[in-house]
Amino acid sequence: MNRKMIAFTIGRILVAEGALMIPSVIVGLIYRERSTWVFLPAIALLLVIGALCSWKKPQNTVIFTRDGYFIVAAVWILLSVFGALPFWFSGYFKSFWDCLFEIASGFSTTGASILTAIDPLPRCILFWRSFSHWVGGMGVLMFVLAIMPLAEERSLHLMRAEVPGPVVGKLVPRIRDTAKILYGVYTGLTAILVILLLCGGMPLFDALCYAFGTAGTGGFGITNAGVSLYHSAYIETVIAVFMMLFGINFNLYYFILIGKVKDALKSEELHVYLGVIAAAVLAIAASTYHLYQGIGSTLRYAFFQVTTIISTTGFATADFANDWPAFSQMILILLMFTGACAGSTGGGLKMSRIILLFKSCNQEIQRLLHPRAVQVVRLEKKPVDNLLLRTTLSFFVLYIGIVTAVTLLLSLDEPDFLTNFTAATACLSNIGPGLGKIGPNGNYAFYSAPSKVMLSLTMLAGRLELFPIFVLFNFRHDRKNGAKA
Amino acid sequence: MNRKMIAFTIGRILVAEGALMIPSVIVGLIYRERSTWVFLPAIALLLVIGALCSWKKPQNTVIFTRDGYFIVAAVWILLSVFGALPFWFSGYFKSFWDCLFEIASGFSTTGASILTAIDPLPRCILFWRSFSHWVGGMGVLMFVLAIMPLAEERSLHLMRAEVPGPVVGKLVPRIRDTAKILYGVYTGLTAILVILLLCGGMPLFDALCYAFGTAGTGGFGITNAGVSLYHSAYIETVIAVFMMLFGINFNLYYFILIGKVKDALKSEELHVYLGVIAAAVLAIAASTYHLYQGIGSTLRYAFFQVTTIISTTGFATADFANDWPAFSQMILILLMFTGACAGSTGGGLKMSRIILLFKSCNQEIQRLLHPRAVQVVRLEKKPVDNLLLRTTLSFFVLYIGIVTAVTLLLSLDEPDFLTNFTAATACLSNIGPGLGKIGPNGNYAFYSAPSKVMLSLTMLAGRLELFPIFVLFNFRHDRKNGAKA
Repeated sequence: MNRKMIAFTIGRILVAEGALMIPSVIVGLIYRERSTWVFLPAIALLLVIGALCSWKKPQNTVIFTRDGYFIVAAVWILLSVFGALPFWFSGYFKSFWDCLFEIASGFSTTGASILTAIDPLPRCILFWRSFSHWVGGMGVLMFVLAIMPLAEERSLHLMRAEVPGPVVGKLVPRIRDTAKILYGVYTGLTAILVILLLCGGMPLFDALCYAFGTAGTGGFGITNAGVSLYHSAYIETVIAVFMMLFGINFNLYYFILIGKVKDALKSEELHVYLGVIAAAVLAIAASTYHLYQGIGSTLRYAFFQVTTIISTTGFATADFANDWPAFSQMILILLMFTGACAGSTGGGLKMSRIILLFKSCNQEIQRLLHPRAVQVVRLEKKPVDNLLLRTTLSFFVLYIGIVTAVTLLLSLDEPDFLTNFTAATACLSNIGPGLGKIGPNGNYAFYSAPSKVMLSLTMLAGRLELFPIFVLFNFRHDRKNGAKA
Repeated sequence: MNRKMIAFTIGRILVAEGALMIPSVIVGLIYRERSTWVFLPAIALLLVIGALCSWKKPQNTVIFTRDGYFIVAAVWILLSVFGALPFWFSGYFKSFWDCLFEIASGFSTTGASILTAIDPLPRCILFWRSFSHWVGGMGVLMFVLAIMPLAEERSLHLMRAEVPGPVVGKLVPRIRDTAKILYGVYTGLTAILVILLLCGGMPLFDALCYAFGTAGTGGFGITNAGVSLYHSAYIETVIAVFMMLFGINFNLYYFILIGKVKDALKSEELHVYLGVIAAAVLAIAASTYHLYQGIGSTLRYAFFQVTTIISTTGFATADFANDWPAFSQMILILLMFTGACAGSTGGGLKMSRIILLFKSCNQEIQRLLHPRAVQVVRLEKKPVDNLLLRTTLSFFVLYIGIVTAVTLLLSLDEPDFLTNFTAATACLSNIGPGLGKIGPNGNYAFYSAPSKVMLSLTMLAGRLELFPIFVLFNFRHDRKNGAKA
């Protein structure tokens, strides 16, 4: 375990977080808000601690895989603790735990909130809240990777722990170049979205915040009314389409950029993703037709709600928790688990894993029917080795296990099963709203402080694809036992 | 596909079902009930159809694995269809679908009921209802295996599809001898239970019915009040202890019988099973202490409800669906999934699978920490090969998938999520009561006919460990495509 190098890396990232607070200060200055000062002590603290940790680059820059996992988990927890400070200083939040929940929800691109009233918040705070989605979206470390001079080997380990989905698509040989490309696509799509929202008559501040929330598949709004405030079918449709787009594997955009459009459109995961969206929209439209006026309006509401859940964003234009029939709610619960495509900014199990789970079960049944036949599971036309299959299956078990454990512990707090179950799922899959009390018009305020801390950790575990958080705890356990790392 | 041999086997089993109805006729004659006649046309039909199918033993007795799965699935469905006839003729049930649901619940040892009033039923019908649990308990085919002269190879295939749990313990070389031993243990334990219940002052008829329900881990009572009717802590405790005992792998009883007591007590699965029971009882007792008078009474209620759910029996002495706090209910939901030990009469995922799932996830995390270390998963101190691990993981995926799909379809019928979710789980795990409207004081009567048929199939799929039912559908699909079997 290379402690010096771990401290150095974490230090650099804390300095970066300090820098990332500057846009919020600028927003506060533009709107001449008194609350702008809340960022200054936080920035000062981050710069001092960060600089102390990363004052001198260690000579030995080699770190092992487990160090990578440790750094990733520790960094996200520390980012949340420091990122909560401006909220705390602002006085708009009831306790530090509430602030921690809110910023963990932001960085993990969950969008779950403990705020009962969003309207009174100053714009600099709203901006920091939404901006945290954008920062979290592609992974803070992906960001840092692209601008930080690090040894190649270490980058690979960080990348492995960070990038969502079972397959890390190494587009170009150097990790840092890959990061730059993906980051370029991310920024470009965000910019297009901002322009389209401005065209719909949305003010610039609102357009930026909603673009951040959409790009990061986060879901924080800037008013209690959310996207519905604008009463614009155009804005709702633009956001719905972009939520769907940000749920697609970013590698495909790279393929399109370099002219390999056909290759991109052949993606098996893309077909399944679009097929699931189409099926879910049709099923929900059939089940909610009586609620809306005409087929067009029904389809629009269904499409928005389906893309918001499957992309794990969490905006809402319909109160599906209170108004929708049980069948439509069940479809949303299913989408809460599937999530979007691997390599996107979305959370959840990811489509490629769902495909592998299906194929693995089918293979079992085929093996019973034809015991002597050799069968190979394929994904994107490439054979999948047994190790990846087992990892995927275990990931599913772990996912269900965490949802179960969190639901169990939440039940000490709140009697409603649907609320607790969807709270656990919505946090682990980084969605935000669920059903019952935490629907689009509800919030997480009523949970106790321990439950909020647990849900904050659940959101981070979901964002980091579970394993780093488990390694973090395992790691400390090992150290106690005196094992060398 | 050896059609003649399939027809022959199914025919023999139908004749056996006709014979199994005779005890119910005797009960009817003893109590001089008018309804006794309802069994006669059913028996006649079974004997005629069964005899026609199995008139002549085919020369070619070889059947393939897939034929075995086909037979098992087809037999359980046919047994249910014919077994429903006495219920239908009796006039106490509203429709044939209700009868089918009730007997599928009986044979699959689920204990879910669509009856709102049990008290008015004649004793011969009550006896058939409870006796179906006992018959289903060790598997109708296990029973038939022990008394039917079949080719050894075929028996193995039937056995593989029939016996619950991941490891088929071949105790003695010949399958038929194994079946006889297990069946002897089953009968012996049932007899002891009947005697103990008689000692507690229970009438013989009641003692027999409750012993059948306990031994088969079924759960049908003979009054609406159920076990609580007797107001006897002794009877409740005896039944609770035997529910726990029937959830233990029957191989262990064989080991004890031949004097290998130490080997039996070393079983890893047994330790986990007892540990889970102890932990669940303590957690529930802590959470329900305010509901009962004193620690002894609290522990007794907790112990009964825990053993009834973990053994997948489904008797109840407390209305946990309405009276218990959410935390205790959540623990019961967890136990609904785990189920009892492999090789017992209980349903659910089974303890040995839960152990393997845990170890598989742990191995993944260890592999991240120590990428080069070779790690082997062990169960009962023996290494588990990758194939069994993958089958176990896929089984879990399939299990969760079925619960999800059934819950989704039930939501077309009934808005309450908790009711639908626990109905799907309680039927697939062969428990019976769930939470919400289908709690110990509720029933499945309100579901529509299609939902009842789906739940009947779910119960059979759970009893047959999922795969045979899938093979059945796959099989017919293959035949359509003209594939040779």
